[in-house]
Amino acid sequence: MTPPHTESRRDARRLEAFSDGVMAVVITIMALNLQVPSDTTWRALEHELPSLLIYVLSFTIIGTYWNNHHHLLRATEHISGAVMWANLHLLFWLSLIPLATKWVGEAHEASLPASVYGIVSLGGALAYLLLVRMIIRANGRDSPVARAIGSDAKGKLSSALFAAGIGLAWVSPWLAYAVYVAVVVQWLVPDRRFVRPRSA
Amino acid sequence: MTPPHTESRRDARRLEAFSDGVMAVVITIMALNLQVPSDTTWRALEHELPSLLIYVLSFTIIGTYWNNHHHLLRATEHISGAVMWANLHLLFWLSLIPLATKWVGEAHEASLPASVYGIVSLGGALAYLLLVRMIIRANGRDSPVARAIGSDAKGKLSSALFAAGIGLAWVSPWLAYAVYVAVVVQWLVPDRRFVRPRSA
Amino acid sequence: MTPPHTESRRDARRLEAFSDGVMAVVITIMALNLQVPSDTTWRALEHELPSLLIYVLSFTIIGTYWNNHHHLLRATEHISGAVMWANLHLLFWLSLIPLATKWVGEAHEASLPASVYGIVSLGGALAYLLLVRMIIRANGRDSPVARAIGSDAKGKLSSALFAAGIGLAWVSPWLAYAVYVAVVVQWLVPDRRFVRPRSA
Amino acid sequence: MTPPHTESRRDARRLEAFSDGVMAVVITIMALNLQVPSDTTWRALEHELPSLLIYVLSFTIIGTYWNNHHHLLRATEHISGAVMWANLHLLFWLSLIPLATKWVGEAHEASLPASVYGIVSLGGALAYLLLVRMIIRANGRDSPVARAIGSDAKGKLSSALFAAGIGLAWVSPWLAYAVYVAVVVQWLVPDRRFVRPRSA
Repeated sequence: MTPPHTESRRDARRLEAFSDGVMAVVITIMALNLQVPSDTTWRALEHELPSLLIYVLSFTIIGTYWNNHHHLLRATEHISGAVMWANLHLLFWLSLIPLATKWVGEAHEASLPASVYGIVSLGGALAYLLLVRMIIRANGRDSPVARAIGSDAKGKLSSALFAAGIGLAWVSPWLAYAVYVAVVVQWLVPDRRFVRPRSA
Repeated sequence: MTPPHTESRRDARRLEAFSDGVMAVVITIMALNLQVPSDTTWRALEHELPSLLIYVLSFTIIGTYWNNHHHLLRATEHISGAVMWANLHLLFWLSLIPLATKWVGEAHEASLPASVYGIVSLGGALAYLLLVRMIIRANGRDSPVARAIGSDAKGKLSSALFAAGIGLAWVSPWLAYAVYVAVVVQWLVPDRRFVRPRSA
Repeated sequence: MTPPHTESRRDARRLEAFSDGVMAVVITIMALNLQVPSDTTWRALEHELPSLLIYVLSFTIIGTYWNNHHHLLRATEHISGAVMWANLHLLFWLSLIPLATKWVGEAHEASLPASVYGIVSLGGALAYLLLVRMIIRANGRDSPVARAIGSDAKGKLSSALFAAGIGLAWVSPWLAYAVYVAVVVQWLVPDRRFVRPRSA
Repeated sequence: MTPPHTESRRDARRLEAFSDGVMAVVITIMALNLQVPSDTTWRALEHELPSLLIYVLSFTIIGTYWNNHHHLLRATEHISGAVMWANLHLLFWLSLIPLATKWVGEAHEASLPASVYGIVSLGGALAYLLLVRMIIRANGRDSPVARAIGSDAKGKLSSALFAAGIGLAWVSPWLAYAVYVAVVVQWLVPDRRFVRPRSA
């Protein structure tokens, strides 16, 4: 009754809506994991500072995924079953970020939590690359979305940096955190690919 | 002012949106139930492994429901009061999955939690079959959605397997888990019914 | 650029979307408040039964609000600032239901929690009546939504029953629970007003 | 395939949807932070009163943001990358409100929590002003949204009042609470700017 194109855009929209829902809850759940200071002194507040800083990092990572996911889905015309599952797979890794964030917040000077944070983040980054590949397969190599994505150098660099962090955490967790921050910074720098001039 | 058809599609959309919201929160709440390891050793991390594995199972079950629910509602043109309540009934059972998941995660070697996990999952599976029936009743036996659903063999097999798991848990919880995994695997195998070729 | 009518429908849609979000989280949060049994015996499971039953009641209450809210907003064409605040006021009361539910679940034989449950529910019911009134004011007495609502006898009866429950809880909490169940039952009975025949 | 204008409105809608999701969860999470009274006496219930009152305040603040955000986005035609990040930045501050609320609820007679509540609220207020500025930059000084916003006196007054509260908390936390309530009251007073007559 509706043309296939419209039908397909509805698929993309519901995929967006569900993903938005999960990401919105993930972000807020992380805030819920933050502890109220144990008393009303500055010292007690200071004690929560590492938790707050790692929360800022995780918030920005989820925010980056939301941004990228939004641009990706906007350009997508066809959704296949493989795209649906690849998207759920991405959400799975994102749903673990609050847990990794909480662990680092509680024990930020240990290597294992810093390394696990990298593993979960790498899982998300690889899941995103897989999602991109499934979307290109469903839409064709010469589709608008495939051309918009290009080589996805940033996505690949993110994966490499998270992988490096997993190892560097065993030298020093601070090195790992520095690398994770670097990932986020490269995403905050405006992305030429999807930018659309106002006159367009 | 708007034609009934459009009005009715809006009903379906809001039903989808609310269901998406509940399923998104259910998935994320389950992740919130995962415990941070008690210290920063591999042994402590290993201790959380069963919780993580059962989380993966539950995540995939909810993901499957979301997928199926999406395809079902997409083909639906008329929503009745009975469909609304049948949908809420499905969400009720899904909302209990995090609790069953948490219990199994805490005591995965006991029979009762493994059996209760099956009861909750069976509740969801039967609720889904009921929802399908109510949708067919509201849309007619020869409607697009009724033809798209067909015999729903997978849905019925899922119910049978969950019922088997409820009993098998008393022989060994591991048997029950094996059966629950089998349910998920049959859903991961691509479904001919709703697949739409790209050329369509 | 868009005609006022379309603009106004967008207002209604975003009001719906936000309300759906809050209600979806409220429902799921309540499930999160349910406790995992303290050990893996039937007795421990039985111990959680009162919590589960009151959860079923609260779930059905929220489900009823969602249903009614959906029908109400569907027929609404104009949203005013007063409607926005009346809607937030309704969501405020609904957001307290998980807390009241948890309290009753923990101490279902005491009068105060049963009475407070009624106060919160009455707050929600009155907030709904107020929302209806604000919507009628914004759309006019002869608007489709005003005609669809009619006298809203069920809404008024619900308020009266919740008020009765607040008092009856002091005679016996079980009397109060019986009255609260009666409210839900009257809503489960199909509502003539909004039912739309399939041929429409 | 779709004209840029439509595409751009889709951006605005997804920004709305994600923000709605986060705000819906933030509101409900705050309610989750409320404690069940320790026993079933009036005294125990009374003990939770300060937590409840600060919850009412925070609920109204989030509700105000939702209202304003809705009106702002409705009038917005172009979304830039800067707008996306400014919006996430706003959501970041809002996500901290439950934590500040919980702290004040637990220790409402101390200066530090009352002051931190002001810091978080000021963060949100400034983030909102920044978002407004980014939206005007993306849409142009003579765009409908820029004209609709005008001087945004209320937003600036809110920031000033929150800043005052941060300091006043050290004289007396009650002074700070009075100022925070004043912020909310000024928003509850109907806003001429965005009000649209029914005849429009």
